[in-house]
Amino acid sequence: MKVDLECFPCFVRQAVFALNRINMEERVKMEIVKGILDDIKSADLDKSPAHATTYIYRKLKELTKTDPYSEIKKTYNESALKLYPGFRDMVMAAPEPLWYAARLAIAGNIIDFGIYQSVDINATVKKALEKTIAVDDYELLKTHMGRADRVIYLLDNAGEIVFDMLLIEVLMSMGLRVTAVVKGGAVINDVTMEDAVAVGLDKHCMVVSNGTDAVGTDLDECGEAFLNIYQSHDTVISKGQGNFETLVGMNKAIFFLFQAKCDVVARHLGLYAGAMLLKQNIGGFNERAKTDV
Amino acid sequence: MKVDLECFPCFVRQAVFALNRINMEERVKMEIVKGILDDIKSADLDKSPAHATTYIYRKLKELTKTDPYSEIKKTYNESALKLYPGFRDMVMAAPEPLWYAARLAIAGNIIDFGIYQSVDINATVKKALEKTIAVDDYELLKTHMGRADRVIYLLDNAGEIVFDMLLIEVLMSMGLRVTAVVKGGAVINDVTMEDAVAVGLDKHCMVVSNGTDAVGTDLDECGEAFLNIYQSHDTVISKGQGNFETLVGMNKAIFFLFQAKCDVVARHLGLYAGAMLLKQNIGGFNERAKTDV
Repeated sequence: MKVDLECFPCFVRQAVFALNRINMEERVKMEIVKGILDDIKSADLDKSPAHATTYIYRKLKELTKTDPYSEIKKTYNESALKLYPGFRDMVMAAPEPLWYAARLAIAGNIIDFGIYQSVDINATVKKALEKTIAVDDYELLKTHMGRADRVIYLLDNAGEIVFDMLLIEVLMSMGLRVTAVVKGGAVINDVTMEDAVAVGLDKHCMVVSNGTDAVGTDLDECGEAFLNIYQSHDTVISKGQGNFETLVGMNKAIFFLFQAKCDVVARHLGLYAGAMLLKQNIGGFNERAKTDV
Repeated sequence: MKVDLECFPCFVRQAVFALNRINMEERVKMEIVKGILDDIKSADLDKSPAHATTYIYRKLKELTKTDPYSEIKKTYNESALKLYPGFRDMVMAAPEPLWYAARLAIAGNIIDFGIYQSVDINATVKKALEKTIAVDDYELLKTHMGRADRVIYLLDNAGEIVFDMLLIEVLMSMGLRVTAVVKGGAVINDVTMEDAVAVGLDKHCMVVSNGTDAVGTDLDECGEAFLNIYQSHDTVISKGQGNFETLVGMNKAIFFLFQAKCDVVARHLGLYAGAMLLKQNIGGFNERAKTDV
């Protein structure tokens, strides 16, 4: 996926969103936005929108010397954890726990501060559960997971991670070994090791850092330890739009679970903004992938 | 009014809006947007948002060598002209034609392609006529116009100009001499002399150019001929947000008729976006103004 004309205002909007979370003089914020325009100007049009936003968030971090999302990440983890027992009961009581947990994990992807300014988790997730999945490769996921023995789970946002934990529990109950992947550094409200520990995911499965604060999963930016794990696995569950943007078309069996939150990504998929997807990576289910399942 | 943090994404959005109206390769458009980021970067934070957008639209004109809004201006003038006889009948039959025509002129201010991508004139204007005016200095306008003998009428957008023409007719029927002002060059869907002639406004009153393609009425950019007229008049009717941004607080009796279309302007006024205003310029009704009425 490449940068689109519509991405440019969104790049600036994201910087303003983040700055609005920081207690700082308005005039200074405006000078910071001006500084970020240079990074937007040097955006590589042949790379993903996520690639460009990586540089924007890095510049923000450098100029503000703060993480605008650290507090809100804690709040959303705590709020989602309060909902965890109730949703866990629903998953375990469901006729098909994998189906219910997968849906819940997609619904939880609504918690994204690169796109929205605030989210009522309970109401929004419940509403999302009622929505039709626009692209639903669930049967393929079920078959694939039934035959695979291990999977990498690329996490996305704080709060959402609690719903991912439920899906990971279900996958593990099916006998799969799961390696959950967090960001190596703070970026937007994406989870880092701190969040995984805060919600107790590390008690369920192995959690590793991808070694970078890049948006999505940009393999050119990831650390060697993660790359070794990534190369040795052929099955991936990928959460969120950023991971989709950076991994779509890769030669690997990836299942993308996310909500297409912007017009650009939705258009790329021939869908409407807000569409929920459980989408198999086209072309990624090659011979090499088959040997791994 | 000064540039706000929220203006920055809007500056880029406006450039993308305009480029979306041009038939040109996507990659070229993206390079043009990148070029415009420099102009946004050099925005003077002590001047109005309109001041910054002037440079953006000039750069767009320079780089695209086209006027993205010329066709749509014609379309909206023609559409509004078709509605003219019906609305004229309503104005003339109204118990207070000045009140009705003023409201209609504010309602017509919805036709703004710096903000919206398309407008259903008839439906939108009729809906706007039903809305409450958030700031309504109509009684002051009525008293002032009843005592004044001449007024400058700063026009705003194509299409909307037809509704302005109705208000100008009413003002003239009250014995006022009206000088209508158009832009000196194409910018967004603002009217130029061509539009005034197309809708026949020149048959009703004197129409002059302000000598510039700047957004709003930026006196530093206006031509000498217009400045002489502006200085010699003390009563002004100013249409639209751009004119408000650039003239608010001036030492002159100005009545601003417009819709606050963005959060920044609305917040500046302590209102909500979409609010309709007939607002007297605070502090502009000084001794000098009184001698003119």
